[in-house]
Amino acid sequence: MSDQDDAPMKDDRLARGRRKLAEITGRSGGEVMEALSEIAPDFARYIFEFGYGDIYSRPGLDLRTRMLATVAGLVCLGHAEKELEVHIGSALNVGASREEVVETIMQMALYAGFPAALNAILIARRVFAARDADSRG
Amino acid sequence: MSDQDDAPMKDDRLARGRRKLAEITGRSGGEVMEALSEIAPDFARYIFEFGYGDIYSRPGLDLRTRMLATVAGLVCLGHAEKELEVHIGSALNVGASREEVVETIMQMALYAGFPAALNAILIARRVFAARDADSRG
Amino acid sequence: MSDQDDAPMKDDRLARGRRKLAEITGRSGGEVMEALSEIAPDFARYIFEFGYGDIYSRPGLDLRTRMLATVAGLVCLGHAEKELEVHIGSALNVGASREEVVETIMQMALYAGFPAALNAILIARRVFAARDADSRG
Amino acid sequence: MSDQDDAPMKDDRLARGRRKLAEITGRSGGEVMEALSEIAPDFARYIFEFGYGDIYSRPGLDLRTRMLATVAGLVCLGHAEKELEVHIGSALNVGASREEVVETIMQMALYAGFPAALNAILIARRVFAARDADSRG
Amino acid sequence: MSDQDDAPMKDDRLARGRRKLAEITGRSGGEVMEALSEIAPDFARYIFEFGYGDIYSRPGLDLRTRMLATVAGLVCLGHAEKELEVHIGSALNVGASREEVVETIMQMALYAGFPAALNAILIARRVFAARDADSRG
Amino acid sequence: MSDQDDAPMKDDRLARGRRKLAEITGRSGGEVMEALSEIAPDFARYIFEFGYGDIYSRPGLDLRTRMLATVAGLVCLGHAEKELEVHIGSALNVGASREEVVETIMQMALYAGFPAALNAILIARRVFAARDADSRG
Repeated sequence: MSDQDDAPMKDDRLARGRRKLAEITGRSGGEVMEALSEIAPDFARYIFEFGYGDIYSRPGLDLRTRMLATVAGLVCLGHAEKELEVHIGSALNVGASREEVVETIMQMALYAGFPAALNAILIARRVFAARDADSRG
Repeated sequence: MSDQDDAPMKDDRLARGRRKLAEITGRSGGEVMEALSEIAPDFARYIFEFGYGDIYSRPGLDLRTRMLATVAGLVCLGHAEKELEVHIGSALNVGASREEVVETIMQMALYAGFPAALNAILIARRVFAARDADSRG
Repeated sequence: MSDQDDAPMKDDRLARGRRKLAEITGRSGGEVMEALSEIAPDFARYIFEFGYGDIYSRPGLDLRTRMLATVAGLVCLGHAEKELEVHIGSALNVGASREEVVETIMQMALYAGFPAALNAILIARRVFAARDADSRG
Repeated sequence: MSDQDDAPMKDDRLARGRRKLAEITGRSGGEVMEALSEIAPDFARYIFEFGYGDIYSRPGLDLRTRMLATVAGLVCLGHAEKELEVHIGSALNVGASREEVVETIMQMALYAGFPAALNAILIARRVFAARDADSRG
Repeated sequence: MSDQDDAPMKDDRLARGRRKLAEITGRSGGEVMEALSEIAPDFARYIFEFGYGDIYSRPGLDLRTRMLATVAGLVCLGHAEKELEVHIGSALNVGASREEVVETIMQMALYAGFPAALNAILIARRVFAARDADSRG
Repeated sequence: MSDQDDAPMKDDRLARGRRKLAEITGRSGGEVMEALSEIAPDFARYIFEFGYGDIYSRPGLDLRTRMLATVAGLVCLGHAEKELEVHIGSALNVGASREEVVETIMQMALYAGFPAALNAILIARRVFAARDADSRG
């Protein structure tokens, strides 16, 4: 197989992933590419291609549920504070209400304990406040 | 406050919790009460009262999303195989499709890694097979 | 059951929990209520009612042991730095010595590894220093 | 330094550790040495020397509290079921009551979630039942 | 872009991944495909394409080091026993010695604690014994 | 056994550990001793004696592989950011290339998920940048 055959397909997953990332996070992913451009440019590409181009682009689960499930998973991981902040915003972007985000986090108190849930609620509070500030700006 | 005042309220949360547990899991919770009856009967009561009577009974998030979020969270915990098995069943009970359960788990490969997701998919497969066997029986 | 029957019982668990929280942490819990008042007021209530009113108020384990066990558990969780800071203080409040707190943390190096234990010892050091500064103030 | 100088000291930590392990677990540690004898004999030695000879032999925290803290930590780790079983027994051996073991585990529901706590209570139940069977034998 | 353009590229990553998986694990991956064929066939494909076709196929780190690093990571996860068993075998397949596998695991006692390391050593012992039995057969 | 017999051996492990720590991390360990000197001086000693004197001083695995395995393990723990920063530097000190460090981290995306790996890559980037700044200074 020639390199020219490779290019369209690779671009396809990449382009689809970047469109999906923009749709969900409301960001271009440019800052991730920038941060990784020198030491791990392929890792940024995998996030776009596999994360957003393959997984997030799948049918079979609506984006609102997908993002609330992601918020739940990130609460239970415990160490993923930055992603939790980004994806609480993503959940709101794709149609979840603030109340649904908070309910999802509170539910996790049962499974991951109160510290993980409390920490996540305080992150949600920060995301909500930033949005209020933006809309007032 | 007298003990008589206490009783109705306590029974209320307990009764609401047991009804909710039955609605979600399709079980009575009897086996949990039985297992804990000698060494930690209050712990069974807390699961009913706080888990199902307080948290699961909250409005603000539909049960289907609540259960899919719970499945996502349990995948990320990594150690909660028994609860994962029960709540994959619960998700189906409250209206999630098998496809939605599988999509929720696959999504967690991004956040908790492939081993946790693969393990959860194999648990889902077992739950689905048991249901097929039951309905064929 | 009428709403009027509900109120006393709910207040009872809540009041007991807030008294217990004050006894253990030496704080009123006001800052938690404040932080959660807009987005998740019920979550603050659950912490008081279930966490402190139900669990911490149980007989059968003295508070000093209960708090040292909690410190041990928080070290092993790895992600609960804020709670670790609060509850190292709580352990001292209810009669544990500084040496006992440090021994409890060091013991966890065997089970959760050195990074989690070292991190916790540095948090303990900060708590002890803040108390020394207060008492000198 | 000669090898002859080394021997007494090494034996000292090792002997102290094996005595402490026997005191706490009621076992000789023989089965661990046996299991590791071919592929990692030094690892068995480290468990005795560092685990029991250094850490568990420290003054400054009574053994009963040390073991209840260990039970708490193991509940929060989530993956250490075998050690949890052994050390629930150890806690009883050094003077903790069954009630104290159960209270310690229930307390962890707040910090590590219900699945980890429930799983640990069921392990405790197994340990208690085995002891009852032994004493009846 | 037509579906015909897609096919070659997709097959390329998939074929490369399956070759790499066979090289590393000494298995065809057939049992994973089989297990997932009904409920999550795409997940098997992602493991081949992304896991083995993208990540494991990267230059820049020799396979022996890559597998020992993977063993270390799986020890620290705590919940990935099946993968640990497979990849201890993989490490041996690509040139690591049994001693190197055991040293890698023992090193993790420092970072993930003794229970995770001890559990992994016992898994390694099982893998070594199965290989000895095979070669004697 | 007399105290005089004890001293040489204890010093031996301690001295060997401190030499090994200096070789690997390029630091004297002085800041750790300093930080722990008041509240847990023995804990610093255990890190030197057991961590570096016993484990890191073992033959059977070259230091470069040992440090890359450690980086992999720390990525999977999720909560050990400070150790990750130190030991990414250690890996470079003992002969691993920057590319090998990054490849090791990227590999962990498969097992611990993208957030843990992305976070670790950003820590690596900071370590590399600090080294570049030092060498330019």
